[in-house]
Amino acid sequence: MTTVYLDYAAATPLDKSVLNAMMPYLTTEFYNPSATYSGARTAHQALGQARERVARTLGAKPSEIIFTAGGTEANNLAIHGIMRLYPGCNIIVSAVEHSAVTKPAAQYDCRLAPVSSDGRLDLTKFSNFVDDKTIFISCMSANNEIGTVQPIRELAYRCEEIRAERRQAGNKLPLYLHVDACQAPNYLDIQVSRLGADLISFNGSKIYGPKQTGALFVRGGLILKPLIDGGGQERGLRSGTENLAGVVGFAAALELAAKLRQTESDRLQKLQEHWVKRIKLELPDAIINGSLKNRLPNNIHMAIPGADNERLLFALDDLGIMAAAGSACSASSQTPSNVLQAIGLDDKTAQSSLRFTMGRQTTLEEVDQAIDGLKQVITRN
Amino acid sequence: MTTVYLDYAAATPLDKSVLNAMMPYLTTEFYNPSATYSGARTAHQALGQARERVARTLGAKPSEIIFTAGGTEANNLAIHGIMRLYPGCNIIVSAVEHSAVTKPAAQYDCRLAPVSSDGRLDLTKFSNFVDDKTIFISCMSANNEIGTVQPIRELAYRCEEIRAERRQAGNKLPLYLHVDACQAPNYLDIQVSRLGADLISFNGSKIYGPKQTGALFVRGGLILKPLIDGGGQERGLRSGTENLAGVVGFAAALELAAKLRQTESDRLQKLQEHWVKRIKLELPDAIINGSLKNRLPNNIHMAIPGADNERLLFALDDLGIMAAAGSACSASSQTPSNVLQAIGLDDKTAQSSLRFTMGRQTTLEEVDQAIDGLKQVITRN
Repeated sequence: MTTVYLDYAAATPLDKSVLNAMMPYLTTEFYNPSATYSGARTAHQALGQARERVARTLGAKPSEIIFTAGGTEANNLAIHGIMRLYPGCNIIVSAVEHSAVTKPAAQYDCRLAPVSSDGRLDLTKFSNFVDDKTIFISCMSANNEIGTVQPIRELAYRCEEIRAERRQAGNKLPLYLHVDACQAPNYLDIQVSRLGADLISFNGSKIYGPKQTGALFVRGGLILKPLIDGGGQERGLRSGTENLAGVVGFAAALELAAKLRQTESDRLQKLQEHWVKRIKLELPDAIINGSLKNRLPNNIHMAIPGADNERLLFALDDLGIMAAAGSACSASSQTPSNVLQAIGLDDKTAQSSLRFTMGRQTTLEEVDQAIDGLKQVITRN
Repeated sequence: MTTVYLDYAAATPLDKSVLNAMMPYLTTEFYNPSATYSGARTAHQALGQARERVARTLGAKPSEIIFTAGGTEANNLAIHGIMRLYPGCNIIVSAVEHSAVTKPAAQYDCRLAPVSSDGRLDLTKFSNFVDDKTIFISCMSANNEIGTVQPIRELAYRCEEIRAERRQAGNKLPLYLHVDACQAPNYLDIQVSRLGADLISFNGSKIYGPKQTGALFVRGGLILKPLIDGGGQERGLRSGTENLAGVVGFAAALELAAKLRQTESDRLQKLQEHWVKRIKLELPDAIINGSLKNRLPNNIHMAIPGADNERLLFALDDLGIMAAAGSACSASSQTPSNVLQAIGLDDKTAQSSLRFTMGRQTTLEEVDQAIDGLKQVITRN
């Protein structure tokens, strides 16, 4: 049976060129970059070069890049790193954030900014949540479930206005904007100057890089409290002997994602249009969830009225088609998706929803195979 | 020039069999273990099998093993995980702990328990530090700098006595013993029942496993506050898409360390005796730091009176001999080693001290080459 993998938002295969870049550090170049002999100095240089490559890809300074063990850790470092320094202040996060943002945020005075029915942050409603004690705002660049792309630049502009209002009012409290960009680098502009955020999280495992690698962009001059203390690696913000193979792999994966961004986005957008066209024609009852306009080009998320998504997933799996229901990370939990709730889906519709996320290996033939399979299992179930 | 690597306490090469065990998860088996299709279920099973293998090697239950991104993270999780749940309580750590223990501990009411001049914890003095508010005790099984092996079983027994005294006095505060065993698995018994600790940290990068892999043993029933929240992986104690390649590599490395423990310990002890014999004969002014009796078999740590260890290290590096001064992780910082201070070494002696740590690839010829080189650079400097 030929399998069709359509869960790239949950995990991407490690790109072969990325693995090749990692191999020296998984074999001969194992030295601890903190040591002083020449082999270790070479490791130290490789670490610096990886940081420079990431910085160049993001339009940032190398000193603004903190390597972390994954995107979840980067999000936690951003949130706790600020919130623990400002007790009594509050945090606003969009209602469609990943649990790697909502769960650390919930440990503070946290407000959930609502989104419209297409999943986009409502900037007017968001503004009403901001008060004199708001220190932190977090909004993802693109949603991991429904693929909605958020208006980050507009949000950054609104944050700049709030800062100006505070300066005028004599309120010296800073306002920090954090962007969870874990789903972004394959398809969206990730230049930090254009995003306008103070803190940005990245994740290797979603960009054809190694698992539990990632980085947090920390705008120069910004002070954070570390999550993990020890030997003082990563400017004291992430202690522990560096995972040099992982860091080099992450840098290579991020560069490759930037290089392929335009061609892959164009290619997948055509496949996405093909999905939508066939669904409208052949599954007229199905509803595409989220924005069709502001959407990652690899994401198809739809409700099949009357169906049970778990049964559909198992039936699809029997046909070799791998897809997802809800968010990948919490697939093992039975709680309804906060994202689908936030866009106003009732439980029944949410439980009839499937996510197909395409990637570099996805072909038109695979898409057709998936849609044919889907039609088959819907008829049968 | 043939090089001689003698810094195994800072970093170990990844064992080839370990890398081979990891390769499927760096290539075809990239699926997210939280997903539901068959490929992901296989990944989920591999994760469970790795956990079972680690548990079996430690004599623990699989549910007691939490995979972390390294030993530093495991230590931080243990300390913050308990201390944040017991505000107002205090923590006692030995004066020779790694910064991955002392730095998180210093964020609470922390007492440093002194050690004797050979680096061993003084159990009587330690007992005087314990009061009714002591919740957490941390002592490493073996020191990363001077190789001293600590009396963990005696400490565990003393903790048991304190618990009994508390029960009698009606003090319901628990007392948790944490052991940083990052340097232990290659040479020491790591059966959790024999160690008698509630929390034990392990590190892949010191046992010929992958960097930034590790585990925290958490005794069944013990409640911890997570450091990193999100998708709820690792029983909610370490969120983030699992690094399955790393986890499988860590499990394989730990098993291999246990398998080779006796033969490698015996072999290295002979090499260590050879070092000590030649040093006494040929460098009679040199002083071996730390205990000669309770010591890891791979560690030689000595002061060369009148020498400057940084100059010696660079001169040794020119001869292809890779060694260390002080603790590897803080090698880039200029602060004197807390370990050498704790055993009573003055700054001058500390700054004349070198660490040579042997490992699986170390031969008698290499040891002789290192001692010959050392004699040469001492004469020259």
